Amino acid sequence: MKEADDYGSEDHRKRASVWFQALRDDLCRALEACEDGVTGPNGTSAGEPGRFEQASWRGDENSDAGGGGGVMSVMRGRVLEKAGVNVSTVWGEFSEEYRDKIPGAAEDSRFWASGVSVVIHPCSPLVPAAHMNTRMIVTTQGWFGGGADLTPVFPIEADTADFHGAYKDACDRHDADYYPKFKKWCDEYFFLPHRGETRGVGGIFYDNLDTGDWEKDFAFTQDVGRAFFDVYPALVRRHMDEDWTEEERQAQLVKRGRYVEFNLLYDRGTQFGLKTGGNTEAILMSLPPEVRWP
Amino acid sequence: MKEADDYGSEDHRKRASVWFQALRDDLCRALEACEDGVTGPNGTSAGEPGRFEQASWRGDENSDAGGGGGVMSVMRGRVLEKAGVNVSTVWGEFSEEYRDKIPGAAEDSRFWASGVSVVIHPCSPLVPAAHMNTRMIVTTQGWFGGGADLTPVFPIEADTADFHGAYKDACDRHDADYYPKFKKWCDEYFFLPHRGETRGVGGIFYDNLDTGDWEKDFAFTQDVGRAFFDVYPALVRRHMDEDWTEEERQAQLVKRGRYVEFNLLYDRGTQFGLKTGGNTEAILMSLPPEVRWP
Repeated sequence: MKEADDYGSEDHRKRASVWFQALRDDLCRALEACEDGVTGPNGTSAGEPGRFEQASWRGDENSDAGGGGGVMSVMRGRVLEKAGVNVSTVWGEFSEEYRDKIPGAAEDSRFWASGVSVVIHPCSPLVPAAHMNTRMIVTTQGWFGGGADLTPVFPIEADTADFHGAYKDACDRHDADYYPKFKKWCDEYFFLPHRGETRGVGGIFYDNLDTGDWEKDFAFTQDVGRAFFDVYPALVRRHMDEDWTEEERQAQLVKRGRYVEFNLLYDRGTQFGLKTGGNTEAILMSLPPEVRWP
Repeated sequence: MKEADDYGSEDHRKRASVWFQALRDDLCRALEACEDGVTGPNGTSAGEPGRFEQASWRGDENSDAGGGGGVMSVMRGRVLEKAGVNVSTVWGEFSEEYRDKIPGAAEDSRFWASGVSVVIHPCSPLVPAAHMNTRMIVTTQGWFGGGADLTPVFPIEADTADFHGAYKDACDRHDADYYPKFKKWCDEYFFLPHRGETRGVGGIFYDNLDTGDWEKDFAFTQDVGRAFFDVYPALVRRHMDEDWTEEERQAQLVKRGRYVEFNLLYDRGTQFGLKTGGNTEAILMSLPPEVRWP
């Protein structure tokens, strides 16, 4: 086991938070390029290519997220109906409720957390929705967590295979056990028990990753981000010019309802963020722009 | 304090569940009459008057809600975009998780519950959404619970006053303490801490009501239902013929997002139902037909 200082060092914190921002910048550029490249029905009907707009927020000094803040980058485009890329770096003290739930917080309730979170709801029901998140947390312990998953309305085998393949490659470069373990974790995590269905077609999910070697864990976390950068915009381009029907659009709006149900009923990040005084707009940026429960 | 048998008697259970069904029938007829009576822009543009359609469900023998079942009545109308009136009578055993949370369940985990639940999302942003629920629960203890609240997009003082007035009258007929207590409980309950806002303009909320006199508590619970029958359809009629703008409609779709956030993040009935193996479609009937998180 490493010393908490390994995760807690100023240098490591800085390198992680700078990396999350760099990934944000790369991803936003790649997604804007999709907006420019579309030639299909949506691109010709819905005006100008979308661009990300940034809004900064500061932590409320009276809340748990006492210090720090974040930047929301949101695009409402003609390919991607709502794409949110949030980076935040916050610190503070956990409330009583969380001290027993968070590793290392019982001894000392102070925490530091930095991460990037991406949620994309495309216009076309044929382009899969997607989520990616990576984060570094420091209490008296320290760890990385994150993952990525794909939520198509109409799953296509080749897309699913490519998405899983990208994550298998990323995992296998670091540890042969990661992919099977983190894929299973994802399937178990993104499950709606009241519907008896998964949120999407899966991907990977990991948390509390601390091998004792910060450099190794950071390198893996970077590769989780890079895999998303490599595979997701390519999936968008693969389908963004295809025509779709109103019936398919309606199915998408219903599918998005399941996404909302998962995020508000079960997602730990959402509940954690809202209960620790995180920025509501940034946390709920994940909710789809238009939804139906018919 | 009464004996549990007072609440648990066959006769009392039957009278309560029969009443919930009778209220359902009366309410559905009153809401269908609104559909017939509309002459405004929505009525002239959106086809035939809506009618409630019923669907029955049976409890899953393998779940906590082992026995019983319910009937969902749903109308998708030209005045009321989605109106759901559910009655259910279920019995079974609480799981470990709930035994310590439900009065009287620690000693014996068996329960019986019957109730009626009403959620209405009107087409027009000028007609307030509304919710009403009354229920009788029996464990080794027994009690009534319920309430009603109004959720306008653009609150109008006279509507709010009439709604509160109807509930003040209903309460005051039974106990001078009820209205101030149950109104406050409603304001506290239907609050979204992460938004710092209430769900709507309030109403009343009560739970664990057991004065020791089942007849008295049942009579009050009936009046809670009758008050809704008296006041809500009248509010619908007051505004259903008014013209509205696309901007007002968009504001309604955003307001409905708050409704979804409340129900999935905080509503005890929703969480309780989903976690005790209740009927998912019936429980999530409360979710609005169309929602936006722009």
